[in-house]
This record gives sequence, structure tokens and C-alpha cells, in this order.
Amino acid sequence: MAIVNNDFTDVMTNRHSIRQFEPGVKIDRAEVKAMIKEATTAPSACNLQSWHFVVIDTPKAKAELKEAVMKFNYPQVDTASTIIYIAGDTQSHKVYRDLWNKVYEAGDISKEKLESIFNTFLPLYEHADRNFLTLDATLDGAMVGMQLLLVARAHGYEANPWSGVDFKKIIPAVGLDPARYVPVMGISIGKPAEKPIASPRYDVDQLIDFRD
Amino acid sequence: MAIVNNDFTDVMTNRHSIRQFEPGVKIDRAEVKAMIKEATTAPSACNLQSWHFVVIDTPKAKAELKEAVMKFNYPQVDTASTIIYIAGDTQSHKVYRDLWNKVYEAGDISKEKLESIFNTFLPLYEHADRNFLTLDATLDGAMVGMQLLLVARAHGYEANPWSGVDFKKIIPAVGLDPARYVPVMGISIGKPAEKPIASPRYDVDQLIDFRD
Repeated sequence: MAIVNNDFTDVMTNRHSIRQFEPGVKIDRAEVKAMIKEATTAPSACNLQSWHFVVIDTPKAKAELKEAVMKFNYPQVDTASTIIYIAGDTQSHKVYRDLWNKVYEAGDISKEKLESIFNTFLPLYEHADRNFLTLDATLDGAMVGMQLLLVARAHGYEANPWSGVDFKKIIPAVGLDPARYVPVMGISIGKPAEKPIASPRYDVDQLIDFRD
Repeated sequence: MAIVNNDFTDVMTNRHSIRQFEPGVKIDRAEVKAMIKEATTAPSACNLQSWHFVVIDTPKAKAELKEAVMKFNYPQVDTASTIIYIAGDTQSHKVYRDLWNKVYEAGDISKEKLESIFNTFLPLYEHADRNFLTLDATLDGAMVGMQLLLVARAHGYEANPWSGVDFKKIIPAVGLDPARYVPVMGISIGKPAEKPIASPRYDVDQLIDFRD
């Protein structure tokens, strides 16, 4: 139920994708909730927290999920103890006024700061098109997903993120409204039943430009 | 130059966005490179690693960057010791054949697995439209950005991710080709010169659905 590996370097650098999990391992929903809560310390654009989590841990829910998942991702769906599907919320700006009012009421920011936040960000989102809102929610969802992968390891599990799905089917398949939510990624969590492949990375020199 | 805080819980849960950094603090480019290398242990869709990093740490480069940055993000641009702008690479699939050939040559996967990877993923990307490639690169860039925020803290710095930019101007402003790269986020890094605001999070209960 708690963090059993608090070694940052180990949690991060020894994280590899696992696609075959040990059968019969149950993860309590209270622990799933705790892991999600820890992961949501991730930042998000304008603190909009444009993320939503659907937990799939029953045979029925897995079968419904698989209707929208590409076949090559079946192993990590079939064998995971739990799957957390992360969706992006394109309407998160509609509730963010409440959130910032709370920050203000707690005395953490001034009235002027509150108004400047509302005047800076709110029109941006209210006038944004679906494409912008989708990108923004994808960014938030991916950030929280990254933390969730690390949190899973810190809790003594291994995980696998997957995004190969039918983009039109996946949101209804997890019971959400496709007018509001967009697909980000699934995260399969469990105890590993295979040796992970440490997939190689490009030489970092070819990925960095230093500006004069 | 190294990790000075290896406490996973502290690194993650005490990370807050800092927008005012101590002036006069230099971060060696070798350390910037080391931090990026550590962060690129992040997973990416099909291991395409659709990310690219531009390091901005001179007055000239900052001035050029600011031409494309929204005014409310000026403080963390002006005062950061270094800024790492993360762009998404929409053409990463064009080089991924080489990468997987290396995994195969190292004996880590079979010829059949190699061919199945090529046959599964390659057509998906080669036939994908710009919108799909942009979303995919945004997802990868956000994942590596999340790790970079944590790595910065582990190295004893604080950071701030920002995405408020002119989407048309930002890629040329950091010297990249807008036909290939898409904006993801800037990350300002330095020593904090302000008390961070611990911005509140929604109650996790309202963010989770458990499927039957």
C-alpha cells in the first residue's frame, strides 16, 4: 500500500516496459487510488489538470477495453493486475475558476494575482479550438502518466504505457463522453513475469542543440 | 554535476513551479546534457523518442526566444540559469529502422520479432497524418519533460515548465525546422529566488472511475 522503493535513480533509470505480468496478483483499489493521487502532483498547463483516470481491473471491463485496443497491446491488457486508462479532459477550463478562487480564499495569492490569472488564461481556453484543447490535454495526461509509471515502480510494481488504440472507439470503451475526453494512454500495472528489454536510446548528442 | 537528492518522494511531491530564479547562477552545459540524458530514460510511443532539446542559456538566445514566448512567461525566461526547450519530432519514424536493427544485432530480439515490429508500427507512422504525428510527438515530449523536471530537482535545482508561446513562431525562434518539429514545452531551471506556491489539486475521487 505504500512506497517501498524510494531510490529516485533506481525508480527512474531501471524502469523498463513490462508486457507480461504475473497472473493472480491483485492490487487493491485503495492502492490504485493512492498511486493516482501521488502521480497528480504532476504539473499541468495553467494547473488545469486536464486528466481523468479510468481503472480497469475486472475480466468484464478488460473485455470491453480490448474492443478498442490494438492486438499488439493485448498481452499487457490480459495479464495486468490493473489498468489505468488516462484520458485528457478538453473541458477542464470550465471548472478552473473554482480552483483558483480556493487558492485566493486560502490567502496564497492576492486579488490582483487572481484577476491577472483569470484575464491571462481564461480567454485563451474559452476561445481555443478543439485541436488546441486536445494537444493541451494530451500534454497534461502524458505528464501525469509519466509520474504514474514511476509511482508504480516506487510501490514495488512494474508497468507499461501503451497508446495503440482505435482513437474513435477507446473513449466510449472506457465509459467516457467522446465530446469531452480524448485518448492519452493506458498504463498496465502488475508484478513482472518477464525479463524487461532495456530498449536503447539515441545518443543524446544528436538530440541537443546549444544556442549561441 | 550529479544527483544530490535521491529521495523519490521528496523529488516528486515537493516539486513546485518556480518562476523567479537566483541571478548569476551558471549551470554547466555538461550538466545540462547529463540531465537530458537521464530524462531520456522516459518511454516513448514505439520507442520512437520523438523529442528534441534546444538549450538556451545566453542573453542573445533568450532575447530571440522571447520573441515567441507569451509575456506572462517572461519571468522564468529572464531569470532561469538555463532553459531547455523541448520540441516534438514528427519525423522520428524515419530513423527508427536503424534503432531496432541495433537491438536485433545486439541479440536482444529475434529476427521474427524485428520483422513483426517493422510490420506493426512502421506502416502506422508512414501513413499517419500530421495531426497524429503531432499528438504522438507531444506525448513523447511531455513524458521526457516530466522526467526532466524531476531530474532538475534531483540535481539540486528547481524548475518550471511553460507552454504559453506563439505556436507559429516558437520553432523557428529556437532554430528548428517547423516542417519537422512541433512545440511541446519550455523548462526553466535554476536556483529558486522565491517561495514556491503549492498549487492545489482536485480531489482525486472526482477524477477516477472504477469500471465494473
